[in-house]
Amino acid sequence: MGEKKILCIGLVCLDIISVVDKYPEEDTDTRCLSQRWQRGGNASNSCTVLAQLGAPCAFMGSLAAGHVGNFVLDSLKHYSIDISHVITHPECSLPASMVISNQTTGSRTILHSNSNLPDVTAQDFENVDLSQYKWIHWEGRNADEQVKMIQRVEEYNKTLPMDQKIIISVEIEKTREHLYQLFGYGDIVFVSKDLAQHFGFDSAPEALKGLHNRVKNGACLICAWAEKGADAMGPDGVVIHSDAFPPDVIVDTLGAGDTFNASVIFALSTGKTIKEALTFGCQIAGRKCGVHGFDGIL
Amino acid sequence: MGEKKILCIGLVCLDIISVVDKYPEEDTDTRCLSQRWQRGGNASNSCTVLAQLGAPCAFMGSLAAGHVGNFVLDSLKHYSIDISHVITHPECSLPASMVISNQTTGSRTILHSNSNLPDVTAQDFENVDLSQYKWIHWEGRNADEQVKMIQRVEEYNKTLPMDQKIIISVEIEKTREHLYQLFGYGDIVFVSKDLAQHFGFDSAPEALKGLHNRVKNGACLICAWAEKGADAMGPDGVVIHSDAFPPDVIVDTLGAGDTFNASVIFALSTGKTIKEALTFGCQIAGRKCGVHGFDGIL
Repeated sequence: MGEKKILCIGLVCLDIISVVDKYPEEDTDTRCLSQRWQRGGNASNSCTVLAQLGAPCAFMGSLAAGHVGNFVLDSLKHYSIDISHVITHPECSLPASMVISNQTTGSRTILHSNSNLPDVTAQDFENVDLSQYKWIHWEGRNADEQVKMIQRVEEYNKTLPMDQKIIISVEIEKTREHLYQLFGYGDIVFVSKDLAQHFGFDSAPEALKGLHNRVKNGACLICAWAEKGADAMGPDGVVIHSDAFPPDVIVDTLGAGDTFNASVIFALSTGKTIKEALTFGCQIAGRKCGVHGFDGIL
Repeated sequence: MGEKKILCIGLVCLDIISVVDKYPEEDTDTRCLSQRWQRGGNASNSCTVLAQLGAPCAFMGSLAAGHVGNFVLDSLKHYSIDISHVITHPECSLPASMVISNQTTGSRTILHSNSNLPDVTAQDFENVDLSQYKWIHWEGRNADEQVKMIQRVEEYNKTLPMDQKIIISVEIEKTREHLYQLFGYGDIVFVSKDLAQHFGFDSAPEALKGLHNRVKNGACLICAWAEKGADAMGPDGVVIHSDAFPPDVIVDTLGAGDTFNASVIFALSTGKTIKEALTFGCQIAGRKCGVHGFDGIL
């Protein structure tokens, strides 16, 4: 058996990215500087980054059949991401996000499409051979099902010696009530700036102090805050900080959060401290903002 | 030999249309009300409308190979549009426009992609059997080549009795210097509101008076002006007007101009007067604004 892998569970979609040098005004015609099709979705993006960092990784999520599904599958294969837990739904269509990437400011404006693709279920997750994984990361989506999956891993972990337990991480990005139960699961909990602001916090340290009572004993809560860097709070309640590492020129922030999450997971999975992992996460996320897409982040 | 056809020469592309109820602010995430893929391009849209009006028609333009090209080709076939003059370039990619369609206002914001697809040339046009066509419409693009195509038709027309000549129409939509030579060609010249405003005109009648000296003797210049309706000026220099026919609720104005052009061409090709054709064009374009896409415009 080879090296144990990192599994990311969540969304894969198509991002159609139009690069402009000025955000278009309503009811105008603009010619893009360039346009590219890119595999997207938080968990899928994090896999791309993990693969580039050299971590064997797998993606679990739903996929539609057809041209766009094939495009996405080819891209996962291109990065040697294990796709054995991708579940194809021939009757569905793949969500496509339209992204307007403003090269002048680095802003990314996203128009998400609704999809009829069902998320993967706890039933699907039963087929995952847990012995292959050292870390499993959930992008918060169908939280009720995801809690059941996590509980399966917790039960499995009870059978293992301390140093062989699967690390569990969750990302809570969106302001949806049903996702908040995920705070109580996971050894590492990533909470988004958006969600922190939704709860009324104006900075990452404030958010950590205010939300830390929601995570389980022993867990570490992490909050990245764009150009302000990122903060973490472990079981000891001490706030750890890393500054951001902005590139000379910010050209594309799409997926910067997914890059941060993946880099923190990668660092922690290789034995780094929280402080080192935070710094590494900010460094790689910073480099990502200096390039289009995910190639060239190292 | 069957009924003579109407040929439209210009662009076909993919429009990915995201329907929203509020134009997105920069750097935000929005969930679309719906998203659809639609064949686009002015000449291609006009063919869709002509086909629905019952006119046998053909599209001439360049197409890329691949998934998106097949999508577009399937759509042309679906509307029984003759594709024998579609020229496929296996090495190119099809332009895809991202369209944000605001259902509340009917506004459509378009992000055009650059394409490496070459436009069809006068050389390509040599293969067109002119005897099959009663009307040929050019969407102004590679004007130098398009002028050569038109001159071929003019030469051909000289061999025909008056009532069998091919009618020539051109659309000058974009503010590009090299397109303006097309004013001097065509029995019918469509000029856009955008271009008229670029020339400093504040209304369709003003634009007609100011630009009419650019068209050839005997030609008719037509300018549609959104909710103000449309105006035309024939050889006698008299301005003819039709009011707009707005639907109860405007939901989608994408392709309204292409619908207007096609409806005017259809009406004139069936022997209607300019006044009748203008009114018909405004009626059908109005109905188009009340529906998403082009189905249900009749």
